[in-house]
Amino acid sequence: MTAQDLRALYAAYIATLNARDWGGLDRFVHPEVVHSAGHRGIAAYRAMLERDVATIPDLRFAVGLLVAEPPHVAARLDFDCRPSGHFLGLPVAGRRVAFTENVIYRFAEGRIAEVWSLIDREAVARQLAA
Amino acid sequence: MTAQDLRALYAAYIATLNARDWGGLDRFVHPEVVHSAGHRGIAAYRAMLERDVATIPDLRFAVGLLVAEPPHVAARLDFDCRPSGHFLGLPVAGRRVAFTENVIYRFAEGRIAEVWSLIDREAVARQLAA
Repeated sequence: MTAQDLRALYAAYIATLNARDWGGLDRFVHPEVVHSAGHRGIAAYRAMLERDVATIPDLRFAVGLLVAEPPHVAARLDFDCRPSGHFLGLPVAGRRVAFTENVIYRFAEGRIAEVWSLIDREAVARQLAA
Repeated sequence: MTAQDLRALYAAYIATLNARDWGGLDRFVHPEVVHSAGHRGIAAYRAMLERDVATIPDLRFAVGLLVAEPPHVAARLDFDCRPSGHFLGLPVAGRRVAFTENVIYRFAEGRIAEVWSLIDREAVARQLAA
């Protein structure tokens, strides 16, 4: 796959997340995907996303920056949402917060096979303290 | 610049950091660089690096993953070091900790012009709690 193919595939993956089309995930996520948070396999990956959306009903993935070089895609994702209850261990309780995620994906066989994600928890903490 | 040029330039930048060659930074860092932590300009950028090394004398930058697509480079950096005193607001006090950084750079005029960095502070916290 070329960088352009990866960009198109990634855009379709993000659209699938924003549509909550969990049944469509297997077009983009490898059955044996490994996530830096410790999740292994597509069922655990899907469960992670479903939990995220349960906590953040208005969660929307917006790609601020995209860097594609096969077999990797790196992205800066921008979020602006109202997590209910606790989020990242912080008592957000429905307040509106904006934060980012820096994430790198390795693709294999045309699907996401490995994910290294870091979320800017400090930005959320600062907004709660403000 | 091609992706290959960016990879070579980035490797030389990392070597410069590991050599503590602050005088050589201007070959790699744009005078008007902007960092997501709020630093603006190469003097503030250099001061940030000098502070990092003052806190972590054995700081070594190791590139675990590199994704290059002009004008961007994304990297996963691996650290394994002994920060003195407080680091990221945590009382590390010389304990050995391993953690990662996910960082994206935008290059302009052959130099780093913008940086979006996130460090895995939670990994450090977990190691201190263990």
